[in-house]
Amino acid sequence: MNRQDFWSEVVRVNGSVTPQVAVRVLIFCLIGMFVHAVVVWTDVQTGLAVAPYEIVGVVLALILVTRTNAGYDRWYEARKLWGGIVNQTRNLATIGAVYGPQDRQWQDEFSRWTAAFAHACRHSLRGETDFQDMEKLLGKSQTALLAAAPHAPMYVAGRLAQLLARAVRDGQLDRFAFMQAEHERASLIDHIGACERILKTPLAKVFSIKIRRFLFVYLVALPIAIVDKTGVMTPIIVLVVAYPLLSLDQIGIELQNPFALDRLSHLPLDEISANIERNVFESQRYLLNSEPTSRVE
Amino acid sequence: MNRQDFWSEVVRVNGSVTPQVAVRVLIFCLIGMFVHAVVVWTDVQTGLAVAPYEIVGVVLALILVTRTNAGYDRWYEARKLWGGIVNQTRNLATIGAVYGPQDRQWQDEFSRWTAAFAHACRHSLRGETDFQDMEKLLGKSQTALLAAAPHAPMYVAGRLAQLLARAVRDGQLDRFAFMQAEHERASLIDHIGACERILKTPLAKVFSIKIRRFLFVYLVALPIAIVDKTGVMTPIIVLVVAYPLLSLDQIGIELQNPFALDRLSHLPLDEISANIERNVFESQRYLLNSEPTSRVE
Amino acid sequence: MNRQDFWSEVVRVNGSVTPQVAVRVLIFCLIGMFVHAVVVWTDVQTGLAVAPYEIVGVVLALILVTRTNAGYDRWYEARKLWGGIVNQTRNLATIGAVYGPQDRQWQDEFSRWTAAFAHACRHSLRGETDFQDMEKLLGKSQTALLAAAPHAPMYVAGRLAQLLARAVRDGQLDRFAFMQAEHERASLIDHIGACERILKTPLAKVFSIKIRRFLFVYLVALPIAIVDKTGVMTPIIVLVVAYPLLSLDQIGIELQNPFALDRLSHLPLDEISANIERNVFESQRYLLNSEPTSRVE
Amino acid sequence: MNRQDFWSEVVRVNGSVTPQVAVRVLIFCLIGMFVHAVVVWTDVQTGLAVAPYEIVGVVLALILVTRTNAGYDRWYEARKLWGGIVNQTRNLATIGAVYGPQDRQWQDEFSRWTAAFAHACRHSLRGETDFQDMEKLLGKSQTALLAAAPHAPMYVAGRLAQLLARAVRDGQLDRFAFMQAEHERASLIDHIGACERILKTPLAKVFSIKIRRFLFVYLVALPIAIVDKTGVMTPIIVLVVAYPLLSLDQIGIELQNPFALDRLSHLPLDEISANIERNVFESQRYLLNSEPTSRVE
Amino acid sequence: MNRQDFWSEVVRVNGSVTPQVAVRVLIFCLIGMFVHAVVVWTDVQTGLAVAPYEIVGVVLALILVTRTNAGYDRWYEARKLWGGIVNQTRNLATIGAVYGPQDRQWQDEFSRWTAAFAHACRHSLRGETDFQDMEKLLGKSQTALLAAAPHAPMYVAGRLAQLLARAVRDGQLDRFAFMQAEHERASLIDHIGACERILKTPLAKVFSIKIRRFLFVYLVALPIAIVDKTGVMTPIIVLVVAYPLLSLDQIGIELQNPFALDRLSHLPLDEISANIERNVFESQRYLLNSEPTSRVE
Repeated sequence: MNRQDFWSEVVRVNGSVTPQVAVRVLIFCLIGMFVHAVVVWTDVQTGLAVAPYEIVGVVLALILVTRTNAGYDRWYEARKLWGGIVNQTRNLATIGAVYGPQDRQWQDEFSRWTAAFAHACRHSLRGETDFQDMEKLLGKSQTALLAAAPHAPMYVAGRLAQLLARAVRDGQLDRFAFMQAEHERASLIDHIGACERILKTPLAKVFSIKIRRFLFVYLVALPIAIVDKTGVMTPIIVLVVAYPLLSLDQIGIELQNPFALDRLSHLPLDEISANIERNVFESQRYLLNSEPTSRVE
Repeated sequence: MNRQDFWSEVVRVNGSVTPQVAVRVLIFCLIGMFVHAVVVWTDVQTGLAVAPYEIVGVVLALILVTRTNAGYDRWYEARKLWGGIVNQTRNLATIGAVYGPQDRQWQDEFSRWTAAFAHACRHSLRGETDFQDMEKLLGKSQTALLAAAPHAPMYVAGRLAQLLARAVRDGQLDRFAFMQAEHERASLIDHIGACERILKTPLAKVFSIKIRRFLFVYLVALPIAIVDKTGVMTPIIVLVVAYPLLSLDQIGIELQNPFALDRLSHLPLDEISANIERNVFESQRYLLNSEPTSRVE
Repeated sequence: MNRQDFWSEVVRVNGSVTPQVAVRVLIFCLIGMFVHAVVVWTDVQTGLAVAPYEIVGVVLALILVTRTNAGYDRWYEARKLWGGIVNQTRNLATIGAVYGPQDRQWQDEFSRWTAAFAHACRHSLRGETDFQDMEKLLGKSQTALLAAAPHAPMYVAGRLAQLLARAVRDGQLDRFAFMQAEHERASLIDHIGACERILKTPLAKVFSIKIRRFLFVYLVALPIAIVDKTGVMTPIIVLVVAYPLLSLDQIGIELQNPFALDRLSHLPLDEISANIERNVFESQRYLLNSEPTSRVE
Repeated sequence: MNRQDFWSEVVRVNGSVTPQVAVRVLIFCLIGMFVHAVVVWTDVQTGLAVAPYEIVGVVLALILVTRTNAGYDRWYEARKLWGGIVNQTRNLATIGAVYGPQDRQWQDEFSRWTAAFAHACRHSLRGETDFQDMEKLLGKSQTALLAAAPHAPMYVAGRLAQLLARAVRDGQLDRFAFMQAEHERASLIDHIGACERILKTPLAKVFSIKIRRFLFVYLVALPIAIVDKTGVMTPIIVLVVAYPLLSLDQIGIELQNPFALDRLSHLPLDEISANIERNVFESQRYLLNSEPTSRVE
Repeated sequence: MNRQDFWSEVVRVNGSVTPQVAVRVLIFCLIGMFVHAVVVWTDVQTGLAVAPYEIVGVVLALILVTRTNAGYDRWYEARKLWGGIVNQTRNLATIGAVYGPQDRQWQDEFSRWTAAFAHACRHSLRGETDFQDMEKLLGKSQTALLAAAPHAPMYVAGRLAQLLARAVRDGQLDRFAFMQAEHERASLIDHIGACERILKTPLAKVFSIKIRRFLFVYLVALPIAIVDKTGVMTPIIVLVVAYPLLSLDQIGIELQNPFALDRLSHLPLDEISANIERNVFESQRYLLNSEPTSRVE
């Protein structure tokens, strides 16, 4: 983010879509060469008017940018949802620690399942079936049960609900604090549901097909429109035009699934869920241990 | 979503609006031919200035893209609302299973009606009167009652309210858990109400008429403006310009009703409601059966 | 919404703003003729550079589209608010019927006043003082009281509050159900308040004056800029440019007040409030009558 | 909003930013004249290429429109917040009147302080220290206390909280109705807080400086770019281009503070707060007086 | 914000990104000179067609403006979140003062920790480890504990929860008022969580790399495209084009982290948290001291 970054970002390959669009760009350049060859050979006058063609170019630019924005919005919405998972987990942890039963075993279980939610979401969104990394958190048998659940995040949320219900039934959790906890717990289900919506709903097919067809028509018509004036340079110009347009198209697709590890700029879910785990344990432990100070009591 | 997709999306017909706009595009090409013929025959000089005409083109491009975006937003809002139906149903199912009465019959009925909500919405939004597919879920007589209800989703929500009221009256459902359940139940009514709003409110008529009239004026004026320079190529250029513009217009309309089966890119409501049913039954059953583990008690 | 629609929308007059902008368009054409006449007569060279002038055109296009969008957003927000009135009324009706007192008179009054809310909003937003159509619903004396109220929707909401208060005082309405009902009732006041905001707040004056002054300057400068090249065709071109621009400006204004009956594309408030009335009565009656089935009890 | 409006808005001075930008526009015209004089005198060939320069023009147009939109959004957000103050005040008034203690003095005080909130916000947002207009509402001594408070709206909200606390303590206000009232009261603080945010946060400085510097560079470069073709007309064209661009810039600034009386298109806070006062008193009085009708009891 | 501001903003350096992009702009000018030199020396004809190149320019302009907007939105979202911290803190303070226990020590502690939240957020977001400025507020030992906490804002929120829990346990805080307080407290955690999301999530890498690569390609291709017509003026024109484009790019980055002190236009967190502290203490003290007036009791 400093001055040097500008030049390093210009040249870096890692994290760029260039490798993925290189073949397509070359194919359109070849088409440009072919058009030039035909024109030279047949001495045809293409004479495609440029002005109305530009309107099509503006439309194409607008919908390509729109699509990239739609991809980016989706990516950012996913980030916000995971931010929500962080917030709701923190709140649940505090409510459990401060208002919950002063029973060690309940506390222990509640914080484990709270911390488990983010991990379960991560595995579920990535379609991973290996939950081994959670054994340290939940123990072997619980992890096996979780891994076999039809819907892992719902299972964790259900477990949390059972713990809350038990605490209320035993008269150890005030019903008003229960209500706030239940509200946070229900929000967790809303967040994972929204992540699943993003995962399962690509851009409307009818829209994405059309964008690519416009791109194709535009990039094929381009050399025909300009070959009269540009001659042997035609493929170079096609390259300069095709590269950004095809890249934008590809970026829109990369951003569409922000959870998959093989996508560029996917969200750092491993890091976020590790952070949540740390928050739940360290912060609560510190709060409870540091309580009895001279000023408070 | 991989590299090959680009080329397959370019050529695919299934899911594209091309068949629906083909006739319109051809008509404008014929107008282009006619203009060219008249010009050749009468040797008239049209001399339409191109520059101010371009401003109209930019306005047209902007409002066409705006309209497509409005259609897309509506489509995505509908998807979000169904995501909300998924979330609220899941929450209701968990609340019922964990906090609800431990009475088998109540549990059974509550989960059936919870799962029925999405099916009722689907039928209602598509104007379908055949509810036969729900008989497995609700039984014959209940399904008949539902099918005869003036508003199926409201009927299901009312049934859920009756079940909750009974549980509270019998002292089997804590009032604080009832409040959360009631909140989720009321949200379901908000979601279906919003879906109905999308269904019944097309783009403001005054706006959509104007867009199509601009399109018409623009595409008729186009050959007159360019025929001097483009000669016999005029209809081809009209085709290249008219095809994307008319397609965008049509896409805006296709996306406007995301529930109807005959629209391109309609939402997969069958799949979503089947998923909800599975969530409600499988997940809750698994949660309840796997409870008594060594660590929890 | 099918293929034929395209052509019928192109030619229809009903629902279009064309009649309202026709005079203005003609005036600008006359200015175009006048400019041409002066140029012919005096042989002046106008020589207005076109390129920088185009930037102004782009700015004009952008803010015109922005304004139309602002008008459309306002129109759609109003529609959403009425969707909210539908949802909250439905919820109130269900809560009243299922959780409310089993006292016939209370039930009857509560559903009448619930159904009355939308009607009261409609009359209030349109500035109508004749409430006669509500006599069938509320009876003569109540309707007279309502019509004389300083703010009809607030009066109805107040009445609903009194009914809820009575039911709670008599121990017939559980306080938790009361809370949900009160929440829905308060939302109704939010919805009508937001509708009144839309009604009373046109686009910031400073913005709308400027848009129209730009339009004027642009359309007067247009013939001066192009007359050298376009000669006798000048007024025709002015017409082609002025018609869409002035139409967009007028559409922005038409959409600004979505409640008034004399606006194009005003919302179908009569239909919506009739629907609400039907929902409240039919659906609740059906739900209550169909309850005692073999499976439920 | 009718046909005549178009022409009257075109020519009106009151409410327009023209007087505020006139000097700036003239300065740029003078620069245009100067450029022309230098060119005539030195016979230099400026030959600034127009095409790339247009891209800069497009960028400038886009960010100017973006800025105007940001100003407008802020203005409309402020309007929405005041709409929220209207809604929440109405709700508080109804809750107080219907669910509150039937004690005349409490009722009187509660409605006075409810009505006082909007007035306090208005004075506070405008930095006014003279609260004399509120003496009719609150009496002399209370008004003096309010005027001396460090934060007038917080003081009113605190007073309302004290009244609610007293009513609950005395067992005259049901705790569930208290909760709804408290929710509305807390929202009032959110609304005034958001208004203060709008008041205190102009557009990011880095952004607004850049916009004006671009404008300056663009308008100075303009005559150099076009003088070859436009000759003596140069300052006129600069005028036609500079006037809309500088006006848009100024509109963005005018809309940024929607509360100050000296800004064009400031919100009618006097009118809104007077309305609220009327709502609180008239509507509630009417509701309470018209209650005992034959049908209700 | 008055007339003079226009000229002062045009020339001011403080708060502008000009110093940060100056080197980059010069490098592109040098490339322009080099291109011109090569052309003069080799007498090559570059003949890059301008029209299709303009489409790339439009795409570049659109995504640059999009990116600047994304940066601005993020900046404004951060401002809104801090506005939320202000609102929620004020509400907590009022609830504590009016509904809380009438015990001096509890009141004192509660307001201190309430005021401490914003300070803790500020330190945490800026990565500062020196909390010395909070010693006046919290005392030495408490400040040391806070500074050592794994997550300072969570620690403060936990402290507030403990205070609320104690007050409820002692029967000094009504449970319904507790619920509202708990709601505000949980919102504080949501606000700081969202600020951390903004801090940790820059624009998707794949997007920002692409924007800078487009910029680079565009600005290198620019002199090649225009050198034929512009000759020796080429570097000047490159400068006029490169300066605004590179500035916009840099502004997008500056706005991305609105918390860091070394960013231009960072938010005035010191001022906001000092304001909150004043609000909490002065306003509440004034409210409590001014209570027993003739009218209220």
